[in-house]
Amino acid sequence: MDDVVKTAPRLTVSRRQRSTTYTPRIESLGVSDYSIVNRTILPKGFGRSVEDDYWHLREHVQLWDVSCQRQVEIKGKDATRLVQMMTPRDLRDAMVGQCLYAPLIDQNAGMINDPIILKLSEDHFWLSIADADVSLWAEGLATGFGLDVEIDEPDVSPLAVQGPKSDDLMAKVFGEAVRKIRFFRFEKLNFNGHPLVVARSGYSKQGGFEIYLDDSSLGLDLWDALWHAGAELNVQAGSPNLIERIEGGLLSYGNDMTRDNNPLECGLERYCQLDDSIDYIGKDALLQIKKQGPGRQIRGILFDGERCPPCATPWPILADDKIIGQITSAIWSLRFKSNVALGMVERGYWNTGQQVSVQSSDGLTRNGSVVSLPFCEVTSLDAR
Amino acid sequence: MDDVVKTAPRLTVSRRQRSTTYTPRIESLGVSDYSIVNRTILPKGFGRSVEDDYWHLREHVQLWDVSCQRQVEIKGKDATRLVQMMTPRDLRDAMVGQCLYAPLIDQNAGMINDPIILKLSEDHFWLSIADADVSLWAEGLATGFGLDVEIDEPDVSPLAVQGPKSDDLMAKVFGEAVRKIRFFRFEKLNFNGHPLVVARSGYSKQGGFEIYLDDSSLGLDLWDALWHAGAELNVQAGSPNLIERIEGGLLSYGNDMTRDNNPLECGLERYCQLDDSIDYIGKDALLQIKKQGPGRQIRGILFDGERCPPCATPWPILADDKIIGQITSAIWSLRFKSNVALGMVERGYWNTGQQVSVQSSDGLTRNGSVVSLPFCEVTSLDAR
Repeated sequence: MDDVVKTAPRLTVSRRQRSTTYTPRIESLGVSDYSIVNRTILPKGFGRSVEDDYWHLREHVQLWDVSCQRQVEIKGKDATRLVQMMTPRDLRDAMVGQCLYAPLIDQNAGMINDPIILKLSEDHFWLSIADADVSLWAEGLATGFGLDVEIDEPDVSPLAVQGPKSDDLMAKVFGEAVRKIRFFRFEKLNFNGHPLVVARSGYSKQGGFEIYLDDSSLGLDLWDALWHAGAELNVQAGSPNLIERIEGGLLSYGNDMTRDNNPLECGLERYCQLDDSIDYIGKDALLQIKKQGPGRQIRGILFDGERCPPCATPWPILADDKIIGQITSAIWSLRFKSNVALGMVERGYWNTGQQVSVQSSDGLTRNGSVVSLPFCEVTSLDAR
Repeated sequence: MDDVVKTAPRLTVSRRQRSTTYTPRIESLGVSDYSIVNRTILPKGFGRSVEDDYWHLREHVQLWDVSCQRQVEIKGKDATRLVQMMTPRDLRDAMVGQCLYAPLIDQNAGMINDPIILKLSEDHFWLSIADADVSLWAEGLATGFGLDVEIDEPDVSPLAVQGPKSDDLMAKVFGEAVRKIRFFRFEKLNFNGHPLVVARSGYSKQGGFEIYLDDSSLGLDLWDALWHAGAELNVQAGSPNLIERIEGGLLSYGNDMTRDNNPLECGLERYCQLDDSIDYIGKDALLQIKKQGPGRQIRGILFDGERCPPCATPWPILADDKIIGQITSAIWSLRFKSNVALGMVERGYWNTGQQVSVQSSDGLTRNGSVVSLPFCEVTSLDAR
């Protein structure tokens, strides 16, 4: 146990931790914390508290440098075949202009990633990925199966505009047309004469857009245009917010799910086609899991006590004097006046209201209970 | 330009940035800097200067937590076939007990990684990887080609013992037999009754070992045994040292080479079988590059002026008023009384003694010259 709040180690600078087209602005705004996703820096803090950032995100509008959401570009004659091979989500009805949240699985139905798939044309996709080299998986499959595809990591630097004032800010820069973009759809809108993919999406439940800037030479101009237009809207630089995403039940690949988990454990069955109409890698394994039912599933956990420390390694969840799950993301929520967390809970213990105890890394045992996700009201996830 | 030394941002804590079996000791020793490799923390500093660490490494012995060197385990009937498919290095004569440095390449001969391959038995390999999800590449190939292999990331946490007193320290813990291990060979030696793979290898030119601990529950015991035995040898916690590795010409995947480079550009031709005796992915492309000769190649660069800043993005190298290469790793060397760097230099400009100028990120233009690698005397690299 350690009551002293230690200063987190600094992140070493090297080419391998890639900076982004927006980094100069992020640095001049006083970035204080970084995470690394896909070997790219993700700004995570600007010297304010996570709570201050949370309230701001719920009330105003933020710019997030999410260039770390790298695109795996798959195009060519066999592109649709390869992408369908990689996901249990049925892509037969996917439309050009659609964003599709999709679990990617391996032969054992283990989660390889959970990207948003953007269908750019009938034979051209971007997989906007979480943290893993999905391109290597795709290229291995393409090589082994002899598919006629081109796989690349294009020069695309997503910039997220998130928060309730996102429509107002985006309209100032991209025009009123942006307001008509539907949830999880994208349009090409002009910026400085350059058509950019603009999607109504993002890693929060506060509404907003992701701009898929495909020419990094325009990065500072794009940032500055949004920044200046946003002055009267109280725009700030921000980042995916841990309180907000846990309350919203947004999963983080590598934190709340890994290769050791399957989509049914992750609550992603709605994105899995489980009949015989399509084929994909891992289908047999997934059908078997469906037949038996998953042995554990992601849930929300509320637990008492003081503010919990950051969850750097999974924390045991106990009931009936045994470990019945683990917590993988946790933080204090002022709204719930409680710690809020995501974790995998064993069957038999995952019903709402189940009383549990949590052993956090500060050595405390805290009383808690299982809740369904998301903590906040669901309006958007179902529309995916 | 910015004369102020800014504090580097802190690294955000999460499960996704995996801690290691040795992390408690690293933290209690006051780790100040982290890098992230394979989604695992790599301790990079302990509050001392890189130069202090450099001189200590050259004179004494250090323990490095290099658990981030994850192992891609490939075993089964088709294991040899798959591993050979992935590398141009001829594995036909590889022996059990051998460590083989090996470029891995894609269909265009682009570098996917440069692991050390450990041959554990005739159908069982570990690929001790640099920063990239090689397992996804291997699994994609295995799935596509229908190979009979098991691919996994086992519970292996390499601990490096590096520096001229390494033999003395290792002998105290593992017995005198350790002194007889040849360079790039491994033996299984007992620790607390548990046989561990111990290799004479490591990411420095100062000599030493890598212990492939395959039971993380023994991590703290192993660290403590080496730490206590090393007290009279002036043991310290350390890390791969930027000055030492540049002087030694040791390449860093993701820094000095990427998917955009082929093994011939990286000076790795000695590890490539270019006749018709074996097949591997990317062979046609590699033979074509060999025929034409690489257009650029890795070189050392010495350049003047004050201490250069960290190289976070490639710096242009100029000659004849044009860009003829880029620097990817650089630091001040007290031994050479100069900045030392690694970079790719175009054909026609890569001869030793070529005068160049370097545009470092602090806005300065510095005079320099091309040198062959390594800066220090080569004794070990050729023996690989």
